[in-house]
Amino acid sequence: MTITAEPVPETKSNAMARLEAAFADDMAKVNALIIERMQSPVGMIPDLASHLVRAGGKRLRPLITLASADLAGYAGDAHYKLAATVEFIHSATLLHDDIVDGSPMRRGKPAANTVWGNAASVLVGDFLFARAFSLMVETGRLRVLDILAGASSIIAEGEVRQLAAIANLDMSEREYMQIIEAKTAELFASAARVSAVIADLPETQEVALDRYGRELGLAFQLVDDALDYAGNAKKLGKAVGDDFREGKVTMPVAKAIQAASKEEQVFWTEVFGKQERDKTDLQHAMALITRHNTLQITLDQAQVHVDNAKASLQIFAPTNTRKLLCDVCDFVLDRSF
Amino acid sequence: MTITAEPVPETKSNAMARLEAAFADDMAKVNALIIERMQSPVGMIPDLASHLVRAGGKRLRPLITLASADLAGYAGDAHYKLAATVEFIHSATLLHDDIVDGSPMRRGKPAANTVWGNAASVLVGDFLFARAFSLMVETGRLRVLDILAGASSIIAEGEVRQLAAIANLDMSEREYMQIIEAKTAELFASAARVSAVIADLPETQEVALDRYGRELGLAFQLVDDALDYAGNAKKLGKAVGDDFREGKVTMPVAKAIQAASKEEQVFWTEVFGKQERDKTDLQHAMALITRHNTLQITLDQAQVHVDNAKASLQIFAPTNTRKLLCDVCDFVLDRSF
Repeated sequence: MTITAEPVPETKSNAMARLEAAFADDMAKVNALIIERMQSPVGMIPDLASHLVRAGGKRLRPLITLASADLAGYAGDAHYKLAATVEFIHSATLLHDDIVDGSPMRRGKPAANTVWGNAASVLVGDFLFARAFSLMVETGRLRVLDILAGASSIIAEGEVRQLAAIANLDMSEREYMQIIEAKTAELFASAARVSAVIADLPETQEVALDRYGRELGLAFQLVDDALDYAGNAKKLGKAVGDDFREGKVTMPVAKAIQAASKEEQVFWTEVFGKQERDKTDLQHAMALITRHNTLQITLDQAQVHVDNAKASLQIFAPTNTRKLLCDVCDFVLDRSF
Repeated sequence: MTITAEPVPETKSNAMARLEAAFADDMAKVNALIIERMQSPVGMIPDLASHLVRAGGKRLRPLITLASADLAGYAGDAHYKLAATVEFIHSATLLHDDIVDGSPMRRGKPAANTVWGNAASVLVGDFLFARAFSLMVETGRLRVLDILAGASSIIAEGEVRQLAAIANLDMSEREYMQIIEAKTAELFASAARVSAVIADLPETQEVALDRYGRELGLAFQLVDDALDYAGNAKKLGKAVGDDFREGKVTMPVAKAIQAASKEEQVFWTEVFGKQERDKTDLQHAMALITRHNTLQITLDQAQVHVDNAKASLQIFAPTNTRKLLCDVCDFVLDRSF
């Protein structure tokens, strides 16, 4: 018997690990900046912020900023500040979303609002948002501020629109896509685009990076919405069926409603007409989602956006970074958390 | 009997009206900008924002920006955008404060969170905050963004610090002053300072305008905290005793505790140790505040800050605008709402 040292196969699932490894030094600088700028003499602020930030998450957005800066041939150090900015804006929206959703869990830990209360979560979110803008000012680039201020209002619009659409079974697929583009894809798009701005890339390439982030963000959210009905609660770090309980009509449900028999339509109307949905309701909903195969339909749609994301990078030279940015799209599609 | 057309006496109480009249045309432009920039295809956003913004309030902060720009001899039109920015940041903090405080009323109307819920108030606050930054970007002045982003994080810090100090009877007077400087005076200071920046005034004058706003803001909050125990609920647009019920130890209470007999100290410790304080508790607290004359002590402190505010403007030429900015300090001191 011979033992050979097999090379680690380049599976889709380790694309994220390869991206992290390629930008580990840069990300260490970003993490140091994140820790530094969440400091405050008011102890509750770093306590709460680090509860969220240290819980980790995937740091996918700041990694996209770093990798995009590399793809753009950027040689300065403003991209560290922008990567931290993007993570701060993301963290602020998470803190505020937990209040909006009333989610008890976030990234496998009790959500900040369940530990410190809604009031602290609102205010620390505001603090991180303000600090994000201070970081951007330091880059000296007004266009960066314009892009991320614009993105921030679009994110809030998307969240409000989602709130207004709770339990609305007539919501069109187009409207659902507009909501996820605003609440999720806009920040991914901006995270990539701002690197093109600081690198002074021509418009075409700036738009290509925006498109990359946007399409990746759409795929990310579609997968997220599928995982809410299919994921492993432990890996997800939150309960399965959260969207259903909160009355959010996401793609897997929207597609199941489109395919519903008359009897099934009655179920959907009744179940989303209720103030609360219990475990039995969720089981019935999941049975219908399985019957009409709408998780696969949702993932097929995500695949289309992943393909678009990859295609948008074709105008860049075929560097290792371009490959990593393409491969991480597959990770987003295949992730189980 | 002869009827003479008496000139309207220049009482302290109409200083606000004179300031409003002097900048009515400018303020009309600011109001139009406010209405324009709170628009969104997501109907709930302008609905909720206009509920707050149309309810009015005093528009004191944007008026300070406009008058400061005039004092600074500014000839462009960026001050309209900055005045709208300041009002947007103020409105965003009000929306978020209502969640923090659980206040049912704001400016004599039901608070937005009692009509639309906490979720919508969080998100529309975020939207207004983001729009404020977009407005600033349009002025093309990074220092303005730096000042107001910095102010925004200081405001959040002040609010968190106040939250952490709830029911803390050992809070020092110095700490109370630091809290109100952060949560209130910082925005007044920035509202005045940014006009010096766009007018390219020298550092000394920029600092003087910052000082003016800061001292006026301190006076404003001290009076606000006195009015919470003395005001007319109808004029205030909110209930008397809100701070007490929320467990906020403000200057009138801090001073009453300093002067308390042993028996009175027991009352204060017990009443702030309770989860809730009722009407009888409030009546007892107000009796002690009256006994130790701490509302007057609070207003005397406000007077000192008003004097400081006026003094800081002495380096400017004695124009009518300088007079209006000085007189409005007296209004802040004498207001009954």
